[in-house]
Amino acid sequence: MSAPIDFYFDFASPYSYIASSLIDEIAEKYGRAVIRHPLVVGTAFRVVGGVSLTGMPMRRDYVLRDIARLARYLKLPYRQPSHQSIPTHHAAQAFLWGQDRDPERAKDFSDRVFSAYFTEDRNISDMEVVLDLAESFGSPRLEAKAAITAPAMKERLKAETEVAISRGVFGVPFSIVGGEPFWGYSRLVLLEKWVGEGAF
Amino acid sequence: MSAPIDFYFDFASPYSYIASSLIDEIAEKYGRAVIRHPLVVGTAFRVVGGVSLTGMPMRRDYVLRDIARLARYLKLPYRQPSHQSIPTHHAAQAFLWGQDRDPERAKDFSDRVFSAYFTEDRNISDMEVVLDLAESFGSPRLEAKAAITAPAMKERLKAETEVAISRGVFGVPFSIVGGEPFWGYSRLVLLEKWVGEGAF
Repeated sequence: MSAPIDFYFDFASPYSYIASSLIDEIAEKYGRAVIRHPLVVGTAFRVVGGVSLTGMPMRRDYVLRDIARLARYLKLPYRQPSHQSIPTHHAAQAFLWGQDRDPERAKDFSDRVFSAYFTEDRNISDMEVVLDLAESFGSPRLEAKAAITAPAMKERLKAETEVAISRGVFGVPFSIVGGEPFWGYSRLVLLEKWVGEGAF
Repeated sequence: MSAPIDFYFDFASPYSYIASSLIDEIAEKYGRAVIRHPLVVGTAFRVVGGVSLTGMPMRRDYVLRDIARLARYLKLPYRQPSHQSIPTHHAAQAFLWGQDRDPERAKDFSDRVFSAYFTEDRNISDMEVVLDLAESFGSPRLEAKAAITAPAMKERLKAETEVAISRGVFGVPFSIVGGEPFWGYSRLVLLEKWVGEGAF
């Protein structure tokens, strides 16, 4: 089996939602695994030069328009969330907890979280919403809450973020295949050529 | 004739170089005119939220790699310029001067400037280099220099920049067709669908 695709994302990043909906098909086509790495794009990323998509008014207007247009282009359901740039620690930690237990189901959970935020306008920064989603995957709320909020899981997310930064990840979505970095939804075309035909 | 494609760029922007090499083919395919608008991405753009491609180390490393890779992908000649993010006022003003006299030749001059910077590593911020290029298009150096440095031409570039910002341009390359904005090389695919099949 060739090198897997490491896929870095934030559950509140619209371009992550879009890329996440496309990455598995590319991976399957060429027999690659996808390893999902949730990040919380915030303080750590500002240090390395990340810029909030919606922090600057002109860019914000464009980006919101671009996302809705891209979703129509890709025929992907999309409804603009009421709350932008929300923190996604709970969702990321819930994902990591699930991933340790069952990577396949964690992928479905990831799709579910994105869908809740980008098509149902649910506030996924809210612990109760994350617990609703976890519950729909069969995890009792109390057990899920304890796991998600455990200090070890907070440390885990922090460490995962540090690993990502050390690998050159400065924004999301970001994919790395055999050391080759691909930033953004738009470079999935090049990633596909890279995994399909080899380095160019 | 349908709405033209307004194409905003900076001569020192690598993604502008890439987009400029692709925009005419798209336009011709669908019978659209391309109107080129050189900008100097600097102070004015920082105000509206523009970010230098190469100002942040991690992002810089990635972007330089991405540009070289994109050039290989598109089979476009490319050699990394020794000097990044140079000011391009002289080249922009030379272009505007030429565009008033002959838009077709100004397009060729634009290609020549990009080529000098991105394939020959010539420092296009240098007036003498700009005059070399103008001379190769038949403009006597003294006449070209007088025209490029005329206060009216400086004001013209400033005004063009203000118009661009008022139209929502916050970075380059940026295309606008019938009011619809497309930022970056990567959205040319959507621009092509938009002009080819109509709004979606």
